[in-house]
Amino acid sequence: MRDFLPAEKARRERVLGVIRETYRAHGFDEIETPVMEESSRLHAGLGGDNEKLAYAVLKRALTADDLNAAAASASPLDLADLGLRFDLTVPLARFYATHRAALPSVFRAIQIAPVWRAERPQKGRHRQFVQCDIDIIGESGALAEVELITATAATLSALGLEGWSVRVNDRRILTGLLDHAGVPAAQHERALITIDKLDKIGADGVAAELAENGIPAAGLAEALAASGWELLDGNPPAWLDQDAYRDLLALRDALPHVDLVFDPTLVRGMGYYTGTIFEVAHPSSSSSLGGGGRYDGMIGRFLGTDVPACGFSLGFERLVDLVDLTTDEVQDAVALVYDPAVPVSRLVALKTHLVAGGSRVRLEARTKNTKTLLERLALEGYTRFAFVEADTTPETLELRALTVG
Amino acid sequence: MRDFLPAEKARRERVLGVIRETYRAHGFDEIETPVMEESSRLHAGLGGDNEKLAYAVLKRALTADDLNAAAASASPLDLADLGLRFDLTVPLARFYATHRAALPSVFRAIQIAPVWRAERPQKGRHRQFVQCDIDIIGESGALAEVELITATAATLSALGLEGWSVRVNDRRILTGLLDHAGVPAAQHERALITIDKLDKIGADGVAAELAENGIPAAGLAEALAASGWELLDGNPPAWLDQDAYRDLLALRDALPHVDLVFDPTLVRGMGYYTGTIFEVAHPSSSSSLGGGGRYDGMIGRFLGTDVPACGFSLGFERLVDLVDLTTDEVQDAVALVYDPAVPVSRLVALKTHLVAGGSRVRLEARTKNTKTLLERLALEGYTRFAFVEADTTPETLELRALTVG
Repeated sequence: MRDFLPAEKARRERVLGVIRETYRAHGFDEIETPVMEESSRLHAGLGGDNEKLAYAVLKRALTADDLNAAAASASPLDLADLGLRFDLTVPLARFYATHRAALPSVFRAIQIAPVWRAERPQKGRHRQFVQCDIDIIGESGALAEVELITATAATLSALGLEGWSVRVNDRRILTGLLDHAGVPAAQHERALITIDKLDKIGADGVAAELAENGIPAAGLAEALAASGWELLDGNPPAWLDQDAYRDLLALRDALPHVDLVFDPTLVRGMGYYTGTIFEVAHPSSSSSLGGGGRYDGMIGRFLGTDVPACGFSLGFERLVDLVDLTTDEVQDAVALVYDPAVPVSRLVALKTHLVAGGSRVRLEARTKNTKTLLERLALEGYTRFAFVEADTTPETLELRALTVG
Repeated sequence: MRDFLPAEKARRERVLGVIRETYRAHGFDEIETPVMEESSRLHAGLGGDNEKLAYAVLKRALTADDLNAAAASASPLDLADLGLRFDLTVPLARFYATHRAALPSVFRAIQIAPVWRAERPQKGRHRQFVQCDIDIIGESGALAEVELITATAATLSALGLEGWSVRVNDRRILTGLLDHAGVPAAQHERALITIDKLDKIGADGVAAELAENGIPAAGLAEALAASGWELLDGNPPAWLDQDAYRDLLALRDALPHVDLVFDPTLVRGMGYYTGTIFEVAHPSSSSSLGGGGRYDGMIGRFLGTDVPACGFSLGFERLVDLVDLTTDEVQDAVALVYDPAVPVSRLVALKTHLVAGGSRVRLEARTKNTKTLLERLALEGYTRFAFVEADTTPETLELRALTVG
């Protein structure tokens, strides 16, 4: 978990502002849920491996009996009734089930918020990190996917990112492919975990690992080789799910300006996906910048009634490292370098005067080495400065330009 | 802990935006710390009663031995190594001690973030709530107090709040007062807890409670009666601390536009205050909207070297209930009410066209009762709408005004 110093915090807030405004323009509405959810909800099987990484919060007023019982059963989680969320999807499903009556029939949600996972410390992994999720609940058609991808593409463009593409697939296509390859339904999940490694271990590695696990997969290698849109455009193979086929063509048709790559081997980790899945690939990053998909069965787990849902999550931490917004919004920022003899009331009057005129203003006591001081202020983003003496007034204040170097 | 639905979330973000921008204009820099701090820091005696309300986070990979040991000693906190912060001051002190070398010699910090306290559920109290803190570290003079109060006053004005005042006092004045009244130093803290109740139980109640606790307080009632600036303007009593006297007059001199009320009975709960203390009173609220003071000894607890510090915290939850920003920024928001037969690609092209023109756009499927639909959209803040048919193009799109009622 990290501290953010002023320059980095300002950068993060600017990037978050762009994301929030773009999503809002696309008709999504921001909501917020508490950082803690009930343990039973966090451990309901919807978070995959992430459930194991959830931070648990101790119950209040634990008795000696509680402690003895947990010791006897060796179940520390019995001592926790709340936990920190590990994603924003489980909280959204709970939120929607609670507030459905107050929400539009098709609800487009924005969530921009931190999540926590007790990962082992390693490069590029953080235990607290921000996710930017948009979800559409209540829309069963491909319009949901198209709006999610359009809003995400607009956001990446607004952030000045180039060269990215959106890889798409459909869980129904994967199911058809596995059936066609002779993988028994009970082994689908296991097989998908292996196929998900295709990028890393290659087609031969996948075949070897499947064989190792005793999973028959006769026609798989051939099907995996024939990837991309050509699979859909020629004579689509018989195992290609017809609904998924129709939805993918609708996506391509509606998103002519997005570099959309159909990849029938794309898996996405979470078990709750039921239809389209997608992720953003960027040449600078071996892992994706974000992803998502359709999860039509999940809301029903909380609500009792199935409601179609589809979401797209951007990994903010990777994104913020790639984005360069330094040339944006250079606000007029003035440093008033004052002599310690100037009365406080005069300093504050001068500062208030400049703030009222629209400047950002910092009071800075004059030091012996003025040059070093001014250089530091320029590096911190201050664009102008003035020396303030005991008799300086707003009228006699002489503002000069501050430049780096 | 609460969920925030779209309208309330948008209101909160607008108010936070005003607070953040005003503080930034006044030369403060935003930072961020993780929501969890080490248990040992949270329970170092700097949080007063709030320490007892801290949520504790279970250690990872607890063994049966750990559980047995905690059961044997009846110490559930032994099972936690982290906890959720209960305020933003302890994290700031830790942050400053860690990053001092990278920060300006006088550091003006903004922290706008949630904190958690395991309060019993009651009206107006929440277990997760947002605080807006500004702190100045490294400035020993009254300039710090003046800048904090100026920035806070500007923020309250920017939020359109009127009728508030800032009550000020100084811990050194309270000490002088108690010495003068014959309260032994060892009983000062206890006596202050009683004086803090003056508003609720009156001067007689205070005298009775002091007597009950065996605290001699001969001249206290008289001194408490002579409150306000007249105490400073006439012949200041001998017990009035001279440094505090000078600082208070400097505050009044530098803040002519702020309704500043000197109240020698103002206590503020936290034990770490060493000088000026202040809080914002508002006629609509019996409790304060925020407060703060000087805490010169605290940073030294983390750093080893004393560094002067002073802070002002606004209670965001009370503030947001008082603020009315409804007339602000009516963004152009367009609802495209579409016939289900319109292809997805056309819907998205129309939407993208309007978004590019600066509008916020939502696609909304046409329902049988169009009137009800349009009324709901108007209530949600949509200002224009158009019906979209299969042949609608950007050129033939007919936008009409949407009005409530």
